[in-house]
Amino acid sequence: MNNSEKTMDKIVALCKNRGFVYPGSEIYGGLANTWDYGPLGVELKTNIKNAWRKKFIQENKYNVGLDSAILMNPQTWVASGHIGGFSDPLMDCKDCKTRHRADNLIEDFDGTNVAGWTNEQMMDYIKEKQIPCPDCGSHNFTDIRQFNLMFKTFQGVTEDSKSELYLRPETAQGIFVNFANIQRTTRKKVPFGVAQVGKSFRNEITPGNFIFRVREFEQMELEFFCKPGTDLEWFNYWRGFCKDWLLSLNIKEENLRLRDHSPEELCFYSKATTDFEYLFPFGWGELWGVADRTDYDLNQHIKTSGKSLDYFDPETNERYVPYVIEPSLGVERLFLTVVCEAYDEENIGTEEKPDVRTVMRFHPALAPFKACVLPLSKKLSEQAGELYAELSKHFLVDYDEAGSIGKRYRRQDEIGTPFCITYDFDSVEDGCVTVRDRDTMEQERIKIDELVAYIEKKIAF
Amino acid sequence: MNNSEKTMDKIVALCKNRGFVYPGSEIYGGLANTWDYGPLGVELKTNIKNAWRKKFIQENKYNVGLDSAILMNPQTWVASGHIGGFSDPLMDCKDCKTRHRADNLIEDFDGTNVAGWTNEQMMDYIKEKQIPCPDCGSHNFTDIRQFNLMFKTFQGVTEDSKSELYLRPETAQGIFVNFANIQRTTRKKVPFGVAQVGKSFRNEITPGNFIFRVREFEQMELEFFCKPGTDLEWFNYWRGFCKDWLLSLNIKEENLRLRDHSPEELCFYSKATTDFEYLFPFGWGELWGVADRTDYDLNQHIKTSGKSLDYFDPETNERYVPYVIEPSLGVERLFLTVVCEAYDEENIGTEEKPDVRTVMRFHPALAPFKACVLPLSKKLSEQAGELYAELSKHFLVDYDEAGSIGKRYRRQDEIGTPFCITYDFDSVEDGCVTVRDRDTMEQERIKIDELVAYIEKKIAF
Repeated sequence: MNNSEKTMDKIVALCKNRGFVYPGSEIYGGLANTWDYGPLGVELKTNIKNAWRKKFIQENKYNVGLDSAILMNPQTWVASGHIGGFSDPLMDCKDCKTRHRADNLIEDFDGTNVAGWTNEQMMDYIKEKQIPCPDCGSHNFTDIRQFNLMFKTFQGVTEDSKSELYLRPETAQGIFVNFANIQRTTRKKVPFGVAQVGKSFRNEITPGNFIFRVREFEQMELEFFCKPGTDLEWFNYWRGFCKDWLLSLNIKEENLRLRDHSPEELCFYSKATTDFEYLFPFGWGELWGVADRTDYDLNQHIKTSGKSLDYFDPETNERYVPYVIEPSLGVERLFLTVVCEAYDEENIGTEEKPDVRTVMRFHPALAPFKACVLPLSKKLSEQAGELYAELSKHFLVDYDEAGSIGKRYRRQDEIGTPFCITYDFDSVEDGCVTVRDRDTMEQERIKIDELVAYIEKKIAF
Repeated sequence: MNNSEKTMDKIVALCKNRGFVYPGSEIYGGLANTWDYGPLGVELKTNIKNAWRKKFIQENKYNVGLDSAILMNPQTWVASGHIGGFSDPLMDCKDCKTRHRADNLIEDFDGTNVAGWTNEQMMDYIKEKQIPCPDCGSHNFTDIRQFNLMFKTFQGVTEDSKSELYLRPETAQGIFVNFANIQRTTRKKVPFGVAQVGKSFRNEITPGNFIFRVREFEQMELEFFCKPGTDLEWFNYWRGFCKDWLLSLNIKEENLRLRDHSPEELCFYSKATTDFEYLFPFGWGELWGVADRTDYDLNQHIKTSGKSLDYFDPETNERYVPYVIEPSLGVERLFLTVVCEAYDEENIGTEEKPDVRTVMRFHPALAPFKACVLPLSKKLSEQAGELYAELSKHFLVDYDEAGSIGKRYRRQDEIGTPFCITYDFDSVEDGCVTVRDRDTMEQERIKIDELVAYIEKKIAF
């Protein structure tokens, strides 16, 4: 099944009905575009994060981890530019009282890319092209004003500006402010990287497309510190590393494109940036950004904090502020990517008598359940239960004794379980079980004693 | 070393200097009692959460996981009682302008437990006993007023009460509002539990004791749904399960006490509650709460949402609202517990010529690094590096070639690495390495081919 044949409706329905993703606070009518990850969703999400941590931290000799706080000293956001510049250009329709992002109005109207435009340029363009309010059609907009995307809160008892705090809009700054602490305590030499998984919050005006754009999300960010002059080499290294990592998780190359920013499109401090885009059912969408951010971030913190954040290179006796390569990925976007990629409908009947099975072809390392134990008869519950308990010591396993074996296979296909293990009456005698493969539907007789090793080999990542 | 001989100063210093815990936003002078988990801290924290998930979800046939959003519909907090009642009784000293919690004033003054007291009772007691301001000694307090502990924020563009949101003060409510979704999509039968790990936020007036009481923290909560009448049995089951789990992580029984609430101390909806307390260097402190919350929470949501959250029992054809057993544990508190428990100083010299090593005796499953590869000479870097890369595919490994082997052992002892692996000149010939045990300091010659299996067996949990 091609990605172009998949629909968001089907994917959202499967996610909800099988316990991957529920609408947040649903019994209270929800809360605009928040989502809760159900019993299968939390496993898929955890497996995605583990796969990232394994390749970006555990197996990578350059990188270490970090888990910094969501609440940071507000000076952080002065230094990073988020208090001054992290905002959307908003305008209201005076007639129907709806609110719009000026950049979206233009892009939706004729596809013009407004990256880098000033508010005046956008306002002029909207007037010149007579772009109407998409809700009521009139041409009666207010001026554009900037709206900061950080969620604000207050610490302590009073709600004055002294106690104002922000929910972090990105995890990256937690890495920069800890650069010196980490370098000192790990005794790492440049080049080295700091990798972090954690929640961030952005008060988006127009969240949407299921979990694609949400206000509360998790990031997996790496800040890789290297010597100035070696940065473009490392940029290419991480650009390739990230792509290979996606392919190793069975994301098809045809559904992925790497878009290098043109010189005009680059942020003023960036020497190179690549957007990884994925072909979602609603079209191409940004999945991953890899950027050479030069020494911009560290210098901003040096300026704002007055602290020294440079690095003394013991090999060359030089002192410098490292350059930074930043691959920044959203967990929910990769979750959606993995779900869209895995979704498949396969006719295992004939053309005249179709019999379509829905199967989530997750990489086995990402699949929520690695296996499901199915006793052929309820009379075998006890032995099958023991097998379930034994396998559960090694990985997450489901157990199902309701309905025909065929029906149970279909249920597991739909949640992407790579192996169905049928315990039958022969098993009691010969110590073997039948293992059915999710993708090929082939069945194999395996010794129970060898089952853990058999599955562990298949799910290795 | 007894816990009474350990000091917070030493533990905090080790945590900071070895990359376990840094003060949050430190280059900006910090942010009152926020903390960042460094390269070793994030591993310890992750291992703690994994150990919980393994025993409470993966190996437990009753329980499934969940990851619900931090931002919830505010009606959730009306139902849960947090908007009405989740507050601290505060009073100001009119003379020195400091702010105090009335309950803490009394408890610190003479140890009186004020659980369940009204503000009037506390005010009368403070006047009667002439309890002074701890900062200036005067007796000139304002009246007590209640201060809500939830962090407030705003969604969307305007800051009016319609867009008011709260950062969740507990993960539990995310489970209750999803009860019906989870039951339906997993087809679980009561009894079953829903387990969640996630961040919560409380605007504490007096955070402190390092990471013991913080405003931003992670919880590991289980809500176990059972049939009314079986609840006290399940309460005892989980009370015992949680205790056994702590002991299995090498928490010593002598440093743990289980305090059952007396009838007067119980919340009005609770049939039984036990506080697990741990002997921290600053005294006994609450680590874990296990409570029989009856059907209070689900009934509150039924009342507030108008939705049906009862359960139809297919075996007895009864319909009922399940009772709930809640074991609720804070990740940071367990982190601090594990660090305090592990901390040890051992004289491995003589009485006349003491030679004290500091060693973190973590359970191997919790230790940040499972092993460290040490080439005896830099001439062996290449072979030792290959061994490091091979082991890293299986678990997190450190690599150290700086200084004498003795010094390197001490560095690994101080961060709790269970195994030091010395690659020497013989290794090239005989394919063996010397494995040194952190706790016994005994050395063993092991075949490189058997090393992964040897370590995996020792770190199993």
